Amino acid sequence: MLSERIRLHSLHDRVVSADEAAALIEDGMIIGMSGFTRAGEAKAVPLALAERAKRQPMKITLMTGASLGNDLDKTFAEAHLLSRRLPFQSDPAMRKAINAGEVMFIDQHLSETVEMLRSNQLGPIDYAIVEAIAITEDGGIVPTTSVGNSATFAILAKQVIVEINVNQTLALEGVHDVYIPTRRPHREPIPVLKPDDRHGTPYIPIPPEKIAAIVLTGKKDSSSNILPPDAETQAIAGHLIRFFEGEVAKGRLGYNLQPLQAGIGTIANAVLHGFIDSPFKDLTMYSEVLQDSTFQLLDAGKMLFASGASMTLSKEMEARVLPAFATYRDRLVLRPQEISNHPEVIRRLGIIAINTALEVDLYGNVNSTHVNATHMMNGIGGSGDFARNAYLSIFVTKSVAKAGAISSIVPFVTHVDHCEHDVDLIVTEQGLADLRGLAPRERAQAIIDHCTHPDYRPALQAYFDEAKARGGHTPHVLERAFAWHLAYRDRGTMKAAF
Amino acid sequence: MLSERIRLHSLHDRVVSADEAAALIEDGMIIGMSGFTRAGEAKAVPLALAERAKRQPMKITLMTGASLGNDLDKTFAEAHLLSRRLPFQSDPAMRKAINAGEVMFIDQHLSETVEMLRSNQLGPIDYAIVEAIAITEDGGIVPTTSVGNSATFAILAKQVIVEINVNQTLALEGVHDVYIPTRRPHREPIPVLKPDDRHGTPYIPIPPEKIAAIVLTGKKDSSSNILPPDAETQAIAGHLIRFFEGEVAKGRLGYNLQPLQAGIGTIANAVLHGFIDSPFKDLTMYSEVLQDSTFQLLDAGKMLFASGASMTLSKEMEARVLPAFATYRDRLVLRPQEISNHPEVIRRLGIIAINTALEVDLYGNVNSTHVNATHMMNGIGGSGDFARNAYLSIFVTKSVAKAGAISSIVPFVTHVDHCEHDVDLIVTEQGLADLRGLAPRERAQAIIDHCTHPDYRPALQAYFDEAKARGGHTPHVLERAFAWHLAYRDRGTMKAAF
Repeated sequence: MLSERIRLHSLHDRVVSADEAAALIEDGMIIGMSGFTRAGEAKAVPLALAERAKRQPMKITLMTGASLGNDLDKTFAEAHLLSRRLPFQSDPAMRKAINAGEVMFIDQHLSETVEMLRSNQLGPIDYAIVEAIAITEDGGIVPTTSVGNSATFAILAKQVIVEINVNQTLALEGVHDVYIPTRRPHREPIPVLKPDDRHGTPYIPIPPEKIAAIVLTGKKDSSSNILPPDAETQAIAGHLIRFFEGEVAKGRLGYNLQPLQAGIGTIANAVLHGFIDSPFKDLTMYSEVLQDSTFQLLDAGKMLFASGASMTLSKEMEARVLPAFATYRDRLVLRPQEISNHPEVIRRLGIIAINTALEVDLYGNVNSTHVNATHMMNGIGGSGDFARNAYLSIFVTKSVAKAGAISSIVPFVTHVDHCEHDVDLIVTEQGLADLRGLAPRERAQAIIDHCTHPDYRPALQAYFDEAKARGGHTPHVLERAFAWHLAYRDRGTMKAAF
Repeated sequence: MLSERIRLHSLHDRVVSADEAAALIEDGMIIGMSGFTRAGEAKAVPLALAERAKRQPMKITLMTGASLGNDLDKTFAEAHLLSRRLPFQSDPAMRKAINAGEVMFIDQHLSETVEMLRSNQLGPIDYAIVEAIAITEDGGIVPTTSVGNSATFAILAKQVIVEINVNQTLALEGVHDVYIPTRRPHREPIPVLKPDDRHGTPYIPIPPEKIAAIVLTGKKDSSSNILPPDAETQAIAGHLIRFFEGEVAKGRLGYNLQPLQAGIGTIANAVLHGFIDSPFKDLTMYSEVLQDSTFQLLDAGKMLFASGASMTLSKEMEARVLPAFATYRDRLVLRPQEISNHPEVIRRLGIIAINTALEVDLYGNVNSTHVNATHMMNGIGGSGDFARNAYLSIFVTKSVAKAGAISSIVPFVTHVDHCEHDVDLIVTEQGLADLRGLAPRERAQAIIDHCTHPDYRPALQAYFDEAKARGGHTPHVLERAFAWHLAYRDRGTMKAAF
């Protein structure tokens, strides 16, 4: 068994316990760890390290691809292990530590972290810890369910710890395509001209002598925690399907559309799910995370190919997909996140980008990250890589939250992650506002008319009318711009503002 | 003379007066016109059209590359000629019409307009009006001092009006490189791997039968209106030069740095000017607008090559450069703005992007466009194309404006064009805040300490301290976030807020 998983026999003596591997890590070190959207994170060594930190306080900087499964960020927060965390997380306990100012969180566009590492603007990484299904005869690391930032972490790190997950299927081998951009000033075009192009290696190439330790694990990825489609997410999907039908009718798109990107989460997954019963066909994806809906579309014969940086599946979908992975492998590729999210490829392919907004303002500025101006939720993730450079940038949200106490459409967003220039369409269960080619005053009226919940529509119209009377390209009543947020904070409902 | 300028003889009979050409344009049409940062705009036909609109009211949609010279936007505003204007302008009278809601202004990233036209999300263009030095034997249009969006406007328009500027030097011929991306889904990499790469034609290729009219003009470009360096802009340049020296010392950059981009305007021009007396050498530019400083760096032997979409020079610099243009031509290229600003090329080359902020907040969010939340200044221009995808994204501003009544560093910007994720360095005459790898609370302290004017520093520190006590990843005192702006509006100085 060991020879199947560690094919370079000279590495067999590097196998150690998780505790022994964790002991290599010293206070103050910078660690780059595999893991992207709860998929393919290292599991044994980080837990051992957190245990150690509980006994003997220490702090590290942790970089990952994106969020981690198995409650790792929770465990880190409880052990007070992290001084710095980047570029994304989605755990309530870690969020609490970040918002308390205990953990310095650097919320980055997901394509940028390794660019900054490579040019020594961040780092250097002391250890990379990467989950793998196997190590090849040449010492190459074959990742599991995500590539994320793992390849560049391993390539740039002084030393590498590999966690071989013996319970993860070897059928994953061949799905990865590790292409690393050439160095400036001799950087060549990223050779992805179609979602299914492959120009890298199916493993992470590193000199085997950099592998300091190998740990055997068997823990599974956490299942995705997205909710099934409901009436509102189905309504959002319906509005978008009708919009795309209109674009086909106008001759702007064919029935195969253009490559799709969908952010992680319940709403984006539901939107993609909506394509199953639609006239669209021969779809492709060029996205970050491949969720249940990707496999449903592949199974339904609606989708030809999907490119991502990770796979995050529900328990049921994982039970169906992983045992039969050989039948999916030729229709999938997992890439480094700097390639899945690369501005060059996104602009070239003409991606249709569908991401989730926390709140949207009158003019289509989008807050993706902060609750009531100040408190971090998860992070911007890849939404900025896609929204800025996409063919079509779509943001979806339910029109209200907290049983109607919060309107997702507000006069002024309390944090801007996506400025008006980057937002083409806003879709709620109420309807769809097509903002392309519109000036701010026109955008506002479209958003009020089509996206806002009826409970908030008259008040938003009144705000806009008063603002217009004061003038300006982007009219506002500045002294009341945040009145709705303050009403929610102080009186428990935005409705108290009007 | 005519044969030298209109080399396809069959086109000679298309020469008409400006009034006759303007008469082709009908009420409600969409017009794409040459012109980028006061360089190379059509001059005779738009004036004739404005005259006609004064006699006989009409409205058109006008798209350009960027801003226009010769007070054209002022003339259009006074003639009430425009219903819609995109993607950029910088004229006080046009600004007034925009802020009054008379002209619908669509403020776009400059790389995106032609992408939207090509995919029929905007348009179609009825007439393109393009200034040229000549028409080739095949009917190709040789632009003057800008390429901007002219090529795609001419290629996509139903018909084209060419203005031959007989006073513009023919020595410009050969400086242009018109490369148009291939169509999706077969789009190939943009073949620019170095600032001096050329893969296009030195003219805009269109079928000669599309040329509906040719007008001869002799009017000059407007001179640039930037101010010479002063003590504060020199201080900003000094901080940046020392920063770059530090980056070289750390081994992150060589003395040739990486290709430079500088936004239009006094401060960015002064920063580039600062490189003349510096240890840096063999510099290159990959920018939008080539200003005086570019030519000063070429003359000083500091810069090897500059790529742009236009040249906007002072009267003195123009008098020096244009007569001797043959000696500069091999060190320059003018490209379509979708190529000069292309995310693919910006990321590939690793651009160092230097742009001007109107105001910056505590966390490094940047407002580039709006005065006091609502009133449009010029537009975002190309700053978003560069800031998002650059190797290093730098924003410069003086720390105060209006004789100290306005602080350029505020608790909360009233409009976000560049979110914190896109801003690496803030530089004022007070100093430089290096925000790379910092979390928001750390960014705030760096900006307070290094960039804020001493008159405002204690008040900003007090705001930040109170905000921190309330908690959050990005702490704020939401009810007072805009107090400084309201104080300026109501009492004439931000200082009245504290």
